[in-house]
Amino acid sequence: MTRWKLTVEYDGGPYVGWQRQNNGPSIQQALEEAVYAFAQEEALVHGAGRTDAGVHALGQVAHVDIEKPADAKTVRDALNHHMKSMPIVVREAEAVTDDFHARFSATGRAYLYRLLNRRAPAALDRGRVWHVGRHLDLGAMQAGAQRLLGRHDFTSFRAAECQANSPVKTLDRLDVDAVGEEIHLIVEARSFLHHQVRNFAGTLKRVGEGHWQPDDITRILGARDRQAAGPTAPAHGLYLTRVVY
Amino acid sequence: MTRWKLTVEYDGGPYVGWQRQNNGPSIQQALEEAVYAFAQEEALVHGAGRTDAGVHALGQVAHVDIEKPADAKTVRDALNHHMKSMPIVVREAEAVTDDFHARFSATGRAYLYRLLNRRAPAALDRGRVWHVGRHLDLGAMQAGAQRLLGRHDFTSFRAAECQANSPVKTLDRLDVDAVGEEIHLIVEARSFLHHQVRNFAGTLKRVGEGHWQPDDITRILGARDRQAAGPTAPAHGLYLTRVVY
Repeated sequence: MTRWKLTVEYDGGPYVGWQRQNNGPSIQQALEEAVYAFAQEEALVHGAGRTDAGVHALGQVAHVDIEKPADAKTVRDALNHHMKSMPIVVREAEAVTDDFHARFSATGRAYLYRLLNRRAPAALDRGRVWHVGRHLDLGAMQAGAQRLLGRHDFTSFRAAECQANSPVKTLDRLDVDAVGEEIHLIVEARSFLHHQVRNFAGTLKRVGEGHWQPDDITRILGARDRQAAGPTAPAHGLYLTRVVY
Repeated sequence: MTRWKLTVEYDGGPYVGWQRQNNGPSIQQALEEAVYAFAQEEALVHGAGRTDAGVHALGQVAHVDIEKPADAKTVRDALNHHMKSMPIVVREAEAVTDDFHARFSATGRAYLYRLLNRRAPAALDRGRVWHVGRHLDLGAMQAGAQRLLGRHDFTSFRAAECQANSPVKTLDRLDVDAVGEEIHLIVEARSFLHHQVRNFAGTLKRVGEGHWQPDDITRILGARDRQAAGPTAPAHGLYLTRVVY
């Protein structure tokens, strides 16, 4: 038996999310079926982060145990072959020790949130960016983002269905960068609450619009009330970019 | 009557190309129908470049004459409203003088060709990049590209159906840049032969693979024979990025 670490890229658009569910196709199921097609083994694929419906990944990490002997390139290419009709690819496969766990061994996660800030909607990047037609003040968003850095009770940015033990998390990075006509949020932490990044995006957008000032972010954090923050930004602007071990 | 200059972005994937044809939907037709929906006028939309089926645009330019009075923002937003189910957007509309012609006034055109150079195929950028699994030598491609710069008879890179009067063109720029896992060709000239950029891409890929040396590009140019050059690279890696006036 070999434990394989898989680095996975996907378009979340057609899927109910990472996790296997009864109401539609999931990334996890697609990978498990590809493993079965390759090795005729019913193996469980464990992901580092359970991305929601519509959320994309550039560097999701998963692990799976496979009995069938093979080298890393064969595993990667075979899984991609069996998923070739789907917008899911294994970027790399790597043999790891049996104590490696995609979720529990992770020490950091990085997300990208893309906003397209122009009047005209997206054509080429439809379903890949959140289109915001009204001009956003980048400086105000950057100042607001600074208030979120560090260790806080993030209850105001936590989805009702969040299963984390504690709302206290440490946010290591929240950069707000202009990239052509887009605004990118680059967000890093050891772990996140459910919808935390999308709630950051929805709240910082309101700061960018001038609806709130950067100081309001401090007030919102202190309120420890989901109603105090902005709406949850759409799933299709969010990318799980990297998992750190 | 106002002549409008439109800067247009589109995903070429679902279309038979820029130009109106009997065998399927075109960008030109979509724009003409949007103009009709907005102004109830049957107007001809003239494009700067007749992109082929599957070719994308970030900055195609077109012009159209509309009798209905409106300001630039209204024209842009109304056309986008009527195309909202399609991956075509008018980025900007600008009123221009009657002697402006999208095609004949253009003094330069810029294209981008994207190759994804990694073993795993594209997931998120499927249909947006040419996937080349074998490692490409960037330096060799850059050296080969240098041989194409300047004024040459480009018969070896010209499609049989090309309608240009002369195969002699002046190539102003052909940069080969590494961008993450991608290789980008940035190509600029006053005008191009049919398939010229895709034939450059297909030929430089063979240089990158080591099948040809940079010196072979000089030989291929001199042959003035389409058979001497490499295959035409796929349409879906190509983007018309800019038209200069």
